[in-house]
Amino acid sequence: MLEEASHILSIKGVRWGGVAAGIKKAGENQKPQLDLALMEIEAGSSVSAVFTQNLFCAAPVVLARKHLSEWSSCGEALYCLINAGNANAGTGDQGYEAAQRSCQSIAEKLAISPFNVLPFSTGVIGEPLPVEKIEQCSQMLIDSLNENGWQIAANAIMTTDTCPKLVSRQIDIEGEKINLTGISKGAGMIKPDMATMLSYIATDAQIEQALLDELLMAAVKKSFNRITVDGDTSTNDACVLAATAKSSIKVHKGTEAYQIFEHGLTLLLQDLATAIIRDAEGATKFITIHVKGGLNEDECLQVAYAVAESPLVKTAFFASDPNWGRILAAVGRSGIGSADISSKDKLDINKITISMGEHCICENGGRSFSYDESIATRIMEEKEIILTIDLGRGEYSETVWTSDLSHDYIRINAEYRT
Amino acid sequence: MLEEASHILSIKGVRWGGVAAGIKKAGENQKPQLDLALMEIEAGSSVSAVFTQNLFCAAPVVLARKHLSEWSSCGEALYCLINAGNANAGTGDQGYEAAQRSCQSIAEKLAISPFNVLPFSTGVIGEPLPVEKIEQCSQMLIDSLNENGWQIAANAIMTTDTCPKLVSRQIDIEGEKINLTGISKGAGMIKPDMATMLSYIATDAQIEQALLDELLMAAVKKSFNRITVDGDTSTNDACVLAATAKSSIKVHKGTEAYQIFEHGLTLLLQDLATAIIRDAEGATKFITIHVKGGLNEDECLQVAYAVAESPLVKTAFFASDPNWGRILAAVGRSGIGSADISSKDKLDINKITISMGEHCICENGGRSFSYDESIATRIMEEKEIILTIDLGRGEYSETVWTSDLSHDYIRINAEYRT
Repeated sequence: MLEEASHILSIKGVRWGGVAAGIKKAGENQKPQLDLALMEIEAGSSVSAVFTQNLFCAAPVVLARKHLSEWSSCGEALYCLINAGNANAGTGDQGYEAAQRSCQSIAEKLAISPFNVLPFSTGVIGEPLPVEKIEQCSQMLIDSLNENGWQIAANAIMTTDTCPKLVSRQIDIEGEKINLTGISKGAGMIKPDMATMLSYIATDAQIEQALLDELLMAAVKKSFNRITVDGDTSTNDACVLAATAKSSIKVHKGTEAYQIFEHGLTLLLQDLATAIIRDAEGATKFITIHVKGGLNEDECLQVAYAVAESPLVKTAFFASDPNWGRILAAVGRSGIGSADISSKDKLDINKITISMGEHCICENGGRSFSYDESIATRIMEEKEIILTIDLGRGEYSETVWTSDLSHDYIRINAEYRT
Repeated sequence: MLEEASHILSIKGVRWGGVAAGIKKAGENQKPQLDLALMEIEAGSSVSAVFTQNLFCAAPVVLARKHLSEWSSCGEALYCLINAGNANAGTGDQGYEAAQRSCQSIAEKLAISPFNVLPFSTGVIGEPLPVEKIEQCSQMLIDSLNENGWQIAANAIMTTDTCPKLVSRQIDIEGEKINLTGISKGAGMIKPDMATMLSYIATDAQIEQALLDELLMAAVKKSFNRITVDGDTSTNDACVLAATAKSSIKVHKGTEAYQIFEHGLTLLLQDLATAIIRDAEGATKFITIHVKGGLNEDECLQVAYAVAESPLVKTAFFASDPNWGRILAAVGRSGIGSADISSKDKLDINKITISMGEHCICENGGRSFSYDESIATRIMEEKEIILTIDLGRGEYSETVWTSDLSHDYIRINAEYRT
């Protein structure tokens, strides 16, 4: 899944730079930490992006959306400027100006329009962005650009992450290779809504703009939009996908190449999204929640999130306690099939089955006849747990990934600004 | 608010008994704990009840609803039989039979119909109810009935509660006194939906059945249905209100007496509901969230619950960290006024103001000009905190009460079944 850094494939047409600008607090031994990254996407590329749906979106999100829409029509090189340690969110007009200045500092050095620079920020909300630190480092940042900079960038965008998140995949289409590489960051305030905290992906395939938009939306829906740590959607979520057209493979809709590419892209984004859950704040378990047998997609997700975000279910996972009553209670309160809708669609709890791994724990409205606490406990003690909830009333299914709720989650978030 | 036990008023027409049946684990020093209570409501009373909306409701909830509807028309004495330590939820047909047997064991001794006994259970979900322990104690339980048993009952219904919850109020109507006394229990799995975990209230006023139903619904809406610890609605929530008609005061709709009584009842239920939040699992803070300036009641509640249930906001309260960006992010993701509804109703984040106590922390889409971190920190360090969110777009307001999220919440819920 997560490949070693030595296996990360560079993508022709993309270069990354990274420096320590002093926005993040110094690490152990007072060493400055990487906290500023620059992605260069060569002219001739297509670039798509999705952003947070949180109405309180950060200034850089507003500006990045605007710049990208201006850029889309011009076909020049595009730059993504990313800082960690400060989200520049909830900072009003001053924050917007700071984001503009950060773009200008790169644009001036490269003699390009500021519209060709998209700003991104992640970190604490509500504190002024120290934009002068970005301005002071902009030349050094440009000088550090290189084709093998993915690892440095993955480190520079980290906040409470304990490890950088990088994945590469190579797709074979008609005997030719397409490379795909992506990075992501995030560990808390994670319930992405159209995009995750931050993720940047590139491929050397040739893909037209409209098709790239479509591919990104579809893949995000099945990856970043299916994870939750704490139900809190960030103000700064963004996901960028670039296709540099440096390989000879053209991806057209309706072709076999399209299907292969779409599948590969979805797997890559799922790897990046689940890497966030594996590194979730304080997490000790990685939990996959499959909901099947639903009347539609929405009700499967409603049940999956009610279970995934229940503090009681999450602490039971932390304690390796197969307290399945909490799962059943969360399904019951999820709001699907409740009494006020037509009796035809009323949820019949006797048709629901719940399994932990392969072990059926709940059926016919109560504990399964075959339930064995020692088996259930053994499954709960694993680091990776699959929970399957079959609603027994339809053909739809959905999968959501989440983490447990531990003492360390509380510690990390109580101490976040200290 | 919470009066001392010595001030608890007995209600003529109501007697309580309580015994240690061995359903709860023994306490410190291996002493058996009170875990079985019986409420006797004399013939001639009106009795209303509301129950959980969780679809996976427990067997005793199903049976209590049925028995109450049978009883309503007969005017005989009514009994509430309550055990703590086992919720008899998720127990299927076997659980239903156990609940029936528990009612029968009381009914036989009193030579009444089992329909005159309502069963209630609270505790761990999914384990068989040891009904034989209830049967063995039923005579002793009946023998313990007395007018001053409220304190014993409040203790007997506790689970993870650290203190019993009792409140009395005396209402003066036209020179005559009406007494109101209630008890409640609950500390976790708290987001009541039509009722809280368990609460029993009685008054000596004369109130007809239909009006009592109406009064209970209205008061519950503004009390138990406005609290949340962890967003998890229990499978066993129930709230019972009895009017024994032993005083000379008749409460009729449209009279001044009605208004005074309604107000007093709402205050009593709010005291009982907020007592649950003050004793919430692991709680160190009591937080009142006022949302005002909303277009309607629903959107005020949507914002209030998004903030009240955000693990990030809750840990910031625990840490006394005025990390208001997390509050702002929760408002932004609450789902109200989002982009897909008509632009007229789109939420304008620039009109939102957020205050911690009297201190304005957020306005015009960002940190307030007058924000002072040291003042905000001082307010956050208090044990009781009022957070006011003004949406600046309408006339509606709502209040929700909640607790912080601490290490002890995790400990209590990770160790719950051990």
